[in-house]
Amino acid sequence: MLPRTKPPLSDSLKQLIGQSVDAIDTPTLVVDLDAMQRNLGRMAEFTRKHDIRWRPHAKMHKSAALARLQMQAGAVGVCVQKTAEAEAMAAGGVSDIFITNEVVAPHKLARVARLAGRLTAENGRLSIAVDSREGVLRLAQAMNDARQESGATAVIDVYVEIDVGQGRCGVPPGRLAVELVHEIRRHPALRFAGLQAYHGKAQHVRSARERRDIIAVAAQEAAFTRKLIEAEGIPVELVTGAGTGSMVCEAASGVYGELQAGSFLFMDADYAQNERDPAQPQFEHALFIKTQVMSAGLLHAVCDAGHKSHAIDSGLPRVHVPDGEPLLEYGNGGDEHGILRPARPGAPLPAIGDVLWLVPGHCDPTVNLHDHLVGVKGGLLRGVVDRIIRVDARGALT
Amino acid sequence: MLPRTKPPLSDSLKQLIGQSVDAIDTPTLVVDLDAMQRNLGRMAEFTRKHDIRWRPHAKMHKSAALARLQMQAGAVGVCVQKTAEAEAMAAGGVSDIFITNEVVAPHKLARVARLAGRLTAENGRLSIAVDSREGVLRLAQAMNDARQESGATAVIDVYVEIDVGQGRCGVPPGRLAVELVHEIRRHPALRFAGLQAYHGKAQHVRSARERRDIIAVAAQEAAFTRKLIEAEGIPVELVTGAGTGSMVCEAASGVYGELQAGSFLFMDADYAQNERDPAQPQFEHALFIKTQVMSAGLLHAVCDAGHKSHAIDSGLPRVHVPDGEPLLEYGNGGDEHGILRPARPGAPLPAIGDVLWLVPGHCDPTVNLHDHLVGVKGGLLRGVVDRIIRVDARGALT
Repeated sequence: MLPRTKPPLSDSLKQLIGQSVDAIDTPTLVVDLDAMQRNLGRMAEFTRKHDIRWRPHAKMHKSAALARLQMQAGAVGVCVQKTAEAEAMAAGGVSDIFITNEVVAPHKLARVARLAGRLTAENGRLSIAVDSREGVLRLAQAMNDARQESGATAVIDVYVEIDVGQGRCGVPPGRLAVELVHEIRRHPALRFAGLQAYHGKAQHVRSARERRDIIAVAAQEAAFTRKLIEAEGIPVELVTGAGTGSMVCEAASGVYGELQAGSFLFMDADYAQNERDPAQPQFEHALFIKTQVMSAGLLHAVCDAGHKSHAIDSGLPRVHVPDGEPLLEYGNGGDEHGILRPARPGAPLPAIGDVLWLVPGHCDPTVNLHDHLVGVKGGLLRGVVDRIIRVDARGALT
Repeated sequence: MLPRTKPPLSDSLKQLIGQSVDAIDTPTLVVDLDAMQRNLGRMAEFTRKHDIRWRPHAKMHKSAALARLQMQAGAVGVCVQKTAEAEAMAAGGVSDIFITNEVVAPHKLARVARLAGRLTAENGRLSIAVDSREGVLRLAQAMNDARQESGATAVIDVYVEIDVGQGRCGVPPGRLAVELVHEIRRHPALRFAGLQAYHGKAQHVRSARERRDIIAVAAQEAAFTRKLIEAEGIPVELVTGAGTGSMVCEAASGVYGELQAGSFLFMDADYAQNERDPAQPQFEHALFIKTQVMSAGLLHAVCDAGHKSHAIDSGLPRVHVPDGEPLLEYGNGGDEHGILRPARPGAPLPAIGDVLWLVPGHCDPTVNLHDHLVGVKGGLLRGVVDRIIRVDARGALT
């Protein structure tokens, strides 16, 4: 299925621009643009200091505008997880895209090959991960078909994904990766570009020391695999990986040459629970759910944000008070409601109509629930709506 | 914010109609239309037998087409949870809509009042729940403003929500409800229509006997409140409530006059884990995620459906084998992946490209992740795509 045509922004959304935060309906996903910009600056500075490339993951924000903003700040391009996300990013003017995932369905690979052709013709680049001989053969077939169809000589950059402990996709580090490299190099439309060694599970390990230990092993396994490949006379240009939780470890490893971290831009409640590594930039929460109280009882109040407005796979959202300590705890109230209870005995309950701000547990699937984000400058209390950020790849699953 | 303009169906989606299920991309939400039709028939038969009204909850399917289909089968209208859902249903031709939830924001209430005016003018009806004096006053203000603006005499049906054990919205059964009824009757644009007594938590209690005990108490509390109101000379036309998990209990109570159950149409994995009450119709799974294997290791395989394609608030999806027993278990692989492991020692792992069907844990938030559902006739193995069902109210949160 091709990327969907997105409808134009509604008049009521456009009219919001220039208005106070008070005018934002609830529940709505709001970006604190000042905090986001500070996060972006900190990331750019970090990667400059460590002399490492960054290719932030657009699966988090799914917005071509934010992808372009990151590239203006120094990112080399974006990562995505899905072919449809790559198409949405390309449609939004992003020209260097890495599908950090395996694609095996022939009709999807035909789309991948078409996109590779288009980006190659525009001096851009499409990259993709593989973890099986079958996957490489199917990709090569699709690229050859596209070349014959178009008469052009499109190329796709191919990364061999190795499983450095995530336990999901990827071949084991070592010989199997080398065999895949040989297979890739048999096909003229495929260019072996390096290794992907992403350790997703490490991102959410709370102890900074444990994260360092885990990524040290991952880096050793990537280095060992790289050495095996280079021993056959094949250069390994790049090892790529890392998320916001572990990025300081990959950056310091001497093995990784590119960081894929994406969540730093918005910083969700889950990442904020990690013990901060001293080397890690101090990223701030920049993504919030504006919600309001719609029912108030004696022992609890109810707000209008439930898990149709935020994902709960990494826990419930946290109540955020822009100018103080939260006195309320958010409890699960189902798809459309949140239950608010005093965070400590005697703390007052909010009244009907009171506005609250929530920090989502996990940015990526939360953003995917919304067609747009409302960008605010000047803070959550007295700020003004500056822009509407379209979630171009919302629901882009295929 | 007004309801979004939905884009037309893409050509690739339209072209799918008439093709085999094999042509459906992954991951995609697929409706087995034959099973859905059987569920609908069973529900219609059940409500006829119990001589009880049904107003299925459209928060589950969010589709005006499916709402109309249910009304053709005998439903009096639909329930929704959000003003934007009501607007989407009305835009899709549904004329009898009950917002089974509290709405307190003045700009939302202005939309509610406009919609009430429109539906009243079309001989339709809008209903809403309240649980506070503040809510009643705000609703009355909005209705009066709309009457002055339009010159017409729109009316809205108002249900007092009582909390019969759910612990979320609603006043306690008893005197507070009576006071709210009096407040409602002070405003000519508001018509007191009855009590809403929905017990959400009872839906997922596994034991059929426990569910009966819980709903027996709920029905007693509703009957007691009704009696207090009637003692003041005010008729209580209707007690409304019930979900798919407990509906046989409300139907047999002699207190409830209307069932709000919605999930029966698709039957999710969570409801299927309830011990079936002998009186409950045998609803079948009718909603599936088509997914395929994109990576295969020695100990597990990986499919392309993660929690951006299905909600996990009621547990992970279950692997469904249309013609046999599932040999695989689905494990959490994050936003975009599912980890497949043998359900028993020695069971074979699937190969790259193999197709699997998953039953989502919870229909409502799963459907809300998708812009459309693909409707199939003739079964999941050899069926044909019959229609594309638009999820009109997807993301309609406000």
